[in-house]
Amino acid sequence: MYVAIMGYGVVGSGVATLLKKNHEHIVKKSMQSEMELKYILDRRTFPGDPYEHLLITDFSKIVEDDEVKIVVETMGGLHPAYEYVLASLKAGKNVVTSNKELVAAKGCELLKVADENNVNFLFEASVGGGIPIIRPISQCLAANDIDEIAGILNGTTNFILTKMITDGMTFDEALLLAQKNGYAERDPSADVDGFDACRKICILAALCFGKHVYPDAVYTEGIRKITLADVDYARAWGGVIKLIAKAKKMEDGRVSVMVSPAFIQNHSQLASVDDVFNAILVRGDAIGDVVFYGKGAGKMPTASAVVADVIDCARHMERKKFFGWQDSEEGYVADYLETENTFYIRATTDDAAAAVAKFTGLFGEISLLARQDAPEGEIAFVTGSLSEKDLAEKLELVKDAKVESVIRITNY
Amino acid sequence: MYVAIMGYGVVGSGVATLLKKNHEHIVKKSMQSEMELKYILDRRTFPGDPYEHLLITDFSKIVEDDEVKIVVETMGGLHPAYEYVLASLKAGKNVVTSNKELVAAKGCELLKVADENNVNFLFEASVGGGIPIIRPISQCLAANDIDEIAGILNGTTNFILTKMITDGMTFDEALLLAQKNGYAERDPSADVDGFDACRKICILAALCFGKHVYPDAVYTEGIRKITLADVDYARAWGGVIKLIAKAKKMEDGRVSVMVSPAFIQNHSQLASVDDVFNAILVRGDAIGDVVFYGKGAGKMPTASAVVADVIDCARHMERKKFFGWQDSEEGYVADYLETENTFYIRATTDDAAAAVAKFTGLFGEISLLARQDAPEGEIAFVTGSLSEKDLAEKLELVKDAKVESVIRITNY
Repeated sequence: MYVAIMGYGVVGSGVATLLKKNHEHIVKKSMQSEMELKYILDRRTFPGDPYEHLLITDFSKIVEDDEVKIVVETMGGLHPAYEYVLASLKAGKNVVTSNKELVAAKGCELLKVADENNVNFLFEASVGGGIPIIRPISQCLAANDIDEIAGILNGTTNFILTKMITDGMTFDEALLLAQKNGYAERDPSADVDGFDACRKICILAALCFGKHVYPDAVYTEGIRKITLADVDYARAWGGVIKLIAKAKKMEDGRVSVMVSPAFIQNHSQLASVDDVFNAILVRGDAIGDVVFYGKGAGKMPTASAVVADVIDCARHMERKKFFGWQDSEEGYVADYLETENTFYIRATTDDAAAAVAKFTGLFGEISLLARQDAPEGEIAFVTGSLSEKDLAEKLELVKDAKVESVIRITNY
Repeated sequence: MYVAIMGYGVVGSGVATLLKKNHEHIVKKSMQSEMELKYILDRRTFPGDPYEHLLITDFSKIVEDDEVKIVVETMGGLHPAYEYVLASLKAGKNVVTSNKELVAAKGCELLKVADENNVNFLFEASVGGGIPIIRPISQCLAANDIDEIAGILNGTTNFILTKMITDGMTFDEALLLAQKNGYAERDPSADVDGFDACRKICILAALCFGKHVYPDAVYTEGIRKITLADVDYARAWGGVIKLIAKAKKMEDGRVSVMVSPAFIQNHSQLASVDDVFNAILVRGDAIGDVVFYGKGAGKMPTASAVVADVIDCARHMERKKFFGWQDSEEGYVADYLETENTFYIRATTDDAAAAVAKFTGLFGEISLLARQDAPEGEIAFVTGSLSEKDLAEKLELVKDAKVESVIRITNY
């Protein structure tokens, strides 16, 4: 059994390392007589690399080699990953990918092509790094009707928020540290603006609810606006701020999907997920809440998930794994303005008493929060449950106070 | 595709309910045209039950019916569950069980018989109730060399400890409440003395390390001796007491397996696992620590795991799932006295200063702990790392103080 790796970056080289390091164990688990790496596709050169002799720059070598049964795609990005994966599947090769952007954008189509060509298209590593989540949802929780899924899906933002919460760093300081540690890119937008988490929740939602969710249909809010004042008020409320990606089935068959910072109660399993760790909560009708926790990124954890898929491919050469979901129609993802939530609101004003009266009038009962050393004229409170649309309309009516921060409150 | 259930108790009736409730979904996931319940074996009668017409008392009806392809064993206990499962496998039927006692005692043999008869023997529900753990270990973490596994595997004891920690109940009060809530049996020994957790860690150890671990080779200590004083000192130390079952691979190929109460640091993912919830931590070479959390028992969570296995059986009729481990030789599980640990020790004495000096002399550096309202003459401290054997020998030398409590300290 021959394997090719496309993309010899962090994850791709981890896959090569792991295939060698645990070789005997992997061959045995694969129920094959052998499992060998034949090609590594990358435009760059790696002088002195132990796999230098396997490096190629021409994709056609892989797609035209009938001995290559499994193609690992760890290039990232949409192009040419999409074209290469599509061609590999059409050539009758199994494909394993860690590329969340690819799965979130093209998963439905690629699964269909895999099905037509009777090969596997697996992507455990695309969500939660090494945390087993795709397979548990599709297999272990198969007897459940899944109602909701929510998680801390981005390690970079979780690291930043953890530093803000535990060390009192500002967002900018924490981001700088994350960049210094190699947890954040020089352009951190994909992480801090929530796009990475968005792609992952789209994949999970498709898997749980059976229809593709396109990232551009999902309301996505990052953590740039979170301040230490908000962190303090979250603590006063009895919790912490996390970037939460969530998807929920609605009664009319649509889904509600959102990425945003949120208050999480201290006793929640998600509250103690710190640093670059990830956690995913699945709420099923029979099982209740199940949480999966671990390293959501990193070379070896992610490579571990990729290799597990490679093993699974090897074991399902004739009878392929069943995965798949339908394409979705316009309007399948509900407008986020329909979503009901309770909200934390922080505002500044010249007349706190008048502002509290105004907000109470607007929202009915509100629960005021206090923090030490709050500047004069700062008020913060938690609302009852209302729709995002109602919230926006009510906040429009506030003239004498400046709303500095609005953060959603979860019940996980 | 026809299914039979043996044992119409809590879990068995949950399976019947779930097969009906999510019927369409389950048939689809099974890739079968139909999935129907044909027999329910139980000695009792259930007048008015919706499945009364399926109830039988004669096992031979199941084993002789060629239409029955999947047998669900939810009887519990070793006999006659073992004989029925063995006969079913030999008759070429797939078997799904939730019976941890059966798997811990006979798993190795039954997996071999399943293999010989080319059928599946699956037992996801035997550990962690509905939490996906057996399949993630055998599949998702397949690329890892697993070093260690540890968990809170018994909901009853975790409920009792939670009530002691959060509500200040004594062990006896909390046990009574657990019995009142239906979480503990009238004879609570299997739970509170650690035997249930022991069976589960044996199954996990076999799966992770490849050889059967027999429960009677495992040092097992329950929670009867835990007092509120210990709970207070754990808090002072910065953690909580949990009943931890753990298994670790040793360098010489043997394994260290133990069930005992342990101090867990507050920031650990296991510390916030409260009430009847379970959590399992798996430490792999590539993935690092992964934690699985959820309801470890209960009718529907456990039934959910059973039905997931039923679906998997249905999808693997021709090509069976690969599970299996070898039998183990005498001495495979190391004597627990060889294990190294740090320990919490609480003692009473007439002369605290002299006792502290004595303990310091014995253990080298010790870290004293303090609690409010400690009675005079009570001392408590944490040792450095030493073997269980060394500990026992050193404690033998203590004459002027009475050692009231010894609890292990973990690094999870």
